[in-house]
Amino acid sequence: MIVRACLTAGVISQLEEDTPAVPRPDGGFDLTLSGRWGIGGGRLNGGYQLAAALRPLTTVMAEHGRPDPVVASASFLRPAVPGPAQLATTVHRVGRRLASGSAQLSQPGPDGDPREVMRLEASFGDLAATAPDRWDGEPAPQLPAPEECLDLFAGTSLPVDSLVVGRVVFRVPAMPGWRRRDPSGDPTAEFWVSFAGGGDPTLGSLAFVVDCATPVVAELGHHSSTAQLTIHLREHPAPGPLACRVRTRHLAHGLHEEDFDVWDSTGVLCAQSRQLAVLVD
Amino acid sequence: MIVRACLTAGVISQLEEDTPAVPRPDGGFDLTLSGRWGIGGGRLNGGYQLAAALRPLTTVMAEHGRPDPVVASASFLRPAVPGPAQLATTVHRVGRRLASGSAQLSQPGPDGDPREVMRLEASFGDLAATAPDRWDGEPAPQLPAPEECLDLFAGTSLPVDSLVVGRVVFRVPAMPGWRRRDPSGDPTAEFWVSFAGGGDPTLGSLAFVVDCATPVVAELGHHSSTAQLTIHLREHPAPGPLACRVRTRHLAHGLHEEDFDVWDSTGVLCAQSRQLAVLVD
Repeated sequence: MIVRACLTAGVISQLEEDTPAVPRPDGGFDLTLSGRWGIGGGRLNGGYQLAAALRPLTTVMAEHGRPDPVVASASFLRPAVPGPAQLATTVHRVGRRLASGSAQLSQPGPDGDPREVMRLEASFGDLAATAPDRWDGEPAPQLPAPEECLDLFAGTSLPVDSLVVGRVVFRVPAMPGWRRRDPSGDPTAEFWVSFAGGGDPTLGSLAFVVDCATPVVAELGHHSSTAQLTIHLREHPAPGPLACRVRTRHLAHGLHEEDFDVWDSTGVLCAQSRQLAVLVD
Repeated sequence: MIVRACLTAGVISQLEEDTPAVPRPDGGFDLTLSGRWGIGGGRLNGGYQLAAALRPLTTVMAEHGRPDPVVASASFLRPAVPGPAQLATTVHRVGRRLASGSAQLSQPGPDGDPREVMRLEASFGDLAATAPDRWDGEPAPQLPAPEECLDLFAGTSLPVDSLVVGRVVFRVPAMPGWRRRDPSGDPTAEFWVSFAGGGDPTLGSLAFVVDCATPVVAELGHHSSTAQLTIHLREHPAPGPLACRVRTRHLAHGLHEEDFDVWDSTGVLCAQSRQLAVLVD
């Protein structure tokens, strides 16, 4: 897989480096979750877990002629931590247009026995087999060019070696309120995302991208943790930075949705996601 | 369950009548899918399947002190048909705030052996244990009162005894383009929903409501079929009609999302859903 990525993209991203999967004789995979994708407290980012699990499941489904994930839905059961993990995969149906599979990500618990940390259900198609025939009712964000934007985490004192904020370059048209310790009250954001260290986005990498940013409820003075994330993967992204639009519309009972849409550098919508998150403050 | 519904709502809805579940000794449930919830061609509506499966899973999770589904994600693998079905349920984790479970709905295939028709992953909480503390960034639809609206399917020649359109009363401020055979080109809609035959909405019934309407891609001249549906259940609905807002923003490769938000008669957001659907024309 790494060879293929090198041929197509020139440079593989840190995300591809850090989502290796070794097939096991029982049909599952051995994974090694990297400590570079943390969110603090020793916990790993949900989108990183999802991307790490979706990648081997995609290789399984590709063997059934359905190489492209079109929807993936992850339930986060327990915190994932850096280190070994196991992924069990199952193919449920190969239909005429779509095929469905699932995967369960497990890590050793305190007693050493494996415990599920994430459950993934996904459907796969073959985007190359159908014409795009696009219809868009919402335009891409109208952002200044990335080089005219600000680096969201420039000068941060965070330990970037172990955090997602060190894996991603966020380019923002203006510093958001929460970053200036002055939440705006408006939980929306538009910005550019690219991978620190280079490498172009892949379809599967979008499963990480939609969970890579500080939740926009920060503009309401809140922090939150992902409970469930569903992503629709619509198109292989062109090389270059990704334009992102994020919005939360409703909080209630300590829960909120976050919608995160991603367009590639040519203005094509590549992914739409929605997550349910739990306020943690 | 029927007794409780009578006590709280006075009249049970046809949806409650038609989603019985009989516990089996193995921990699963025997279901009988009713032919009243069809979408044509002998196939049953996806939201009906989801509501029928979510209801017994909810009883299982309630035993763990998490009586309210807050997110449910369904993958539709094969057409469901009227008749017997079996539901297997599993509890995956009971956490501090949320608990997670899954269910698989199966029906006999051509050879009589059971085949999965739908897979469901859901998380559950206890809405009564937390204050609503609502923040809303998008208002409810501003619709005329239901009695001032038009009955979307008045005078229809469709066989309503076997179709979802006979189970729901849709009240629209104006006849949508697709209903006048003149698609508007704008795949959005706002309308009231109530259950034909009476009965007030329940939290679980919203899993049906978000899939009960003609897909708004009808305004682009398309028909589509649900592949995956994720619903966030935010609040128990007050009695009375439900105000709905539906929107599709992007079609590509014969796939599209549909977002369907539901407010109760007091203007409180009760559910947000998104589905991935496949164009069938």
